[in-house]
Amino acid sequence: MAQKDKKKHSTSLRERLRLPGGEPLDLSRHDAAATPGGPDGKTAGRAATARIGERLAALQERLWAASTAGDRRRVLLVLQGMDTSGKGGTVKHVIGLLNPSGCRITPFKAPTAEERAHPFLWRVEKALPLPGELGIFDRSHYEDVLIARVRGLAPATEINRRYEQINRFEKSLADTGTTLIKCFLHISYEEQRRRLLKRLDEPEKHWKFAASDIDDRALWPAYQEAYEIAMERCGTSYAPWYLVPADRKWYRNWAVSTLLLEHLEELDPRYPEADFDVAEFRKRLLGQS
Amino acid sequence: MAQKDKKKHSTSLRERLRLPGGEPLDLSRHDAAATPGGPDGKTAGRAATARIGERLAALQERLWAASTAGDRRRVLLVLQGMDTSGKGGTVKHVIGLLNPSGCRITPFKAPTAEERAHPFLWRVEKALPLPGELGIFDRSHYEDVLIARVRGLAPATEINRRYEQINRFEKSLADTGTTLIKCFLHISYEEQRRRLLKRLDEPEKHWKFAASDIDDRALWPAYQEAYEIAMERCGTSYAPWYLVPADRKWYRNWAVSTLLLEHLEELDPRYPEADFDVAEFRKRLLGQS
Repeated sequence: MAQKDKKKHSTSLRERLRLPGGEPLDLSRHDAAATPGGPDGKTAGRAATARIGERLAALQERLWAASTAGDRRRVLLVLQGMDTSGKGGTVKHVIGLLNPSGCRITPFKAPTAEERAHPFLWRVEKALPLPGELGIFDRSHYEDVLIARVRGLAPATEINRRYEQINRFEKSLADTGTTLIKCFLHISYEEQRRRLLKRLDEPEKHWKFAASDIDDRALWPAYQEAYEIAMERCGTSYAPWYLVPADRKWYRNWAVSTLLLEHLEELDPRYPEADFDVAEFRKRLLGQS
Repeated sequence: MAQKDKKKHSTSLRERLRLPGGEPLDLSRHDAAATPGGPDGKTAGRAATARIGERLAALQERLWAASTAGDRRRVLLVLQGMDTSGKGGTVKHVIGLLNPSGCRITPFKAPTAEERAHPFLWRVEKALPLPGELGIFDRSHYEDVLIARVRGLAPATEINRRYEQINRFEKSLADTGTTLIKCFLHISYEEQRRRLLKRLDEPEKHWKFAASDIDDRALWPAYQEAYEIAMERCGTSYAPWYLVPADRKWYRNWAVSTLLLEHLEELDPRYPEADFDVAEFRKRLLGQS
C-alpha cells in the first residue's frame, strides 16, 4: 500500500497527460470524462484547486520578482479545444487564482484584415509574455492549422508548411526562456451537445451562442483529425502537448492548475538579493523627519 | 435609530469620497487612516469585500455580454497614489476578484523614448478599454502633471496646458461610453515610512524597493501639492476624483470595490436578447447524430 502511494505521487501529471508527439494520435481512444491522477470527485477537486491557487500565486510573485533582477524566464499557457471545451472557463477559474497584474491574456479571434496581410505568426508574436509574466492564449497560432485546415482557408501546401514554422517558432521561444504549456481541452461530442443545449435553454447564456457553433459541430470529425495531426506534428520535447480530459469542469481546472504548478515548481524562481545597501537606506529612511 | 440607519444607507460611498473639484484641496486635512462608511474593522471588511467581489463578477459578465450585442459602455479605473499607497495591492485584491479575461490592466512606468516622442496622451489612448471591458490604469496620464511637475520634466506652461488637455480627453471618453473612476489612494507620511521599512526589513520584499523611493519621499510636500492641484483642476462632473483613505489596506480594498460596484450597478448592463431562433437551433442540435 505504501509502495502504491509512493508510486502514485512520483508520477507527475505532466507525465500522465503528456502526448508523445511524433506518432499517430487517435482522440476517440481518450476518454474525455476521465480524471487521471485527479482528486476524488468535484468537492475534493475544487478544494484542491483552491489550495493549488495559493501556491501558484506565490510562485507567480517570485517569477515576477526574479524578472526585476534580470531573470528572463516566462511561461506561456496555450489553451485549445472545441467550442464549449472550457477555454474561457479555465481562464476564469484557474487564471483567476493569480495576480492579474502578471497575466497577459490574449483571445485569438478570426484574424482582422491587417492580421491576414501579415504572416500568421505576426499577431502571435505581438502577444507573447514578457519576462516574469504568465501569458495565456485563448486559442492561438494553432487555429492556423485547425480551422484553416478544416475550412480550407489556406492551400494545403501552405498548411503543411505551417507545422514546421510552428515548431521553429516554439523552439525559439523555448530557447529564449519561455516555458510552453500547451493544453488540449478534450471534450466528447455528447458533452458538447449538452453544453450547447444549456446555452440555448438559459436566456442568460444566449449571448454565448453563435450559429457558427452548430456549423462547426457538423465538422466534428474533421476538427478532431486536424487536432490529431497538429498534436502529432507539433508535439515536441521543448513544447509538448498535454491532453486534458475536460468533460468534468472541476477536473479540467484542477489539471490545468496542476500543470502550471508543476512547471513553475520546476522553474523554481527566486526572490532576488538586494543590490543596494539595506542598512544605509534604513538609516536614511529613519532620518527623514 | 431607524432613521439614522436609513440615512447611513442612503449615502453612497461615491458621495462620501468624491472630491468636489474646482476648489482648493488640502490633503493634510484628510485622515488617511479613516474608514468612512466602511465595515467595522479588518475581519468584517475582508468578508464584505469578498461578497462585493461576487456581485462585481456577475455585473462584469453582464457588461461583457452586453458588448457582444453592441453596447459600447466600458469602465476605466484610474489608480494614483504615492509609492507604497497600494496601487498594486488594489489590483491584486480587488481586480483579482473579477474574471481576468475582461480586465485590461496597464501599468504606466517612466515613458520610453518612443512614448516621449509622442504627445503625452498617446500611450494612454493605446491602453484604453474596449466596450465591455474594465480598464485599470496603475498610474496614468496624471503622472504627466505629477512627477512631471515636481521634477520639472516639462516647462511650466506645458504642464499648465495639460490639465485642460486631460479634461478634454476625459470628457471625450465619458461622451463615448466610458465610466471613469479615478481613485487617489491617500496614505500618510508615517504610514509610507512603515511600509518602506517593511520592504527593507523583509528580504522577500527587497525587490520592491527602489532607491528612488527615498528620493521621491524627500519631495513629499511637493507631490502632495501636485496632487492637490491635479484633483482641483481635473475633478469634473464627468470624471470626478475619489479620495480613498488608504492607510488601512482592508478599507482601501473595500472602498475601491464598493466604488466599482456602485458604478456598475448604475450602469446596470443587461444580458442581450437572442438574435436567433432558439427553437430552430435546438432542433438542429438535437438532430445532429
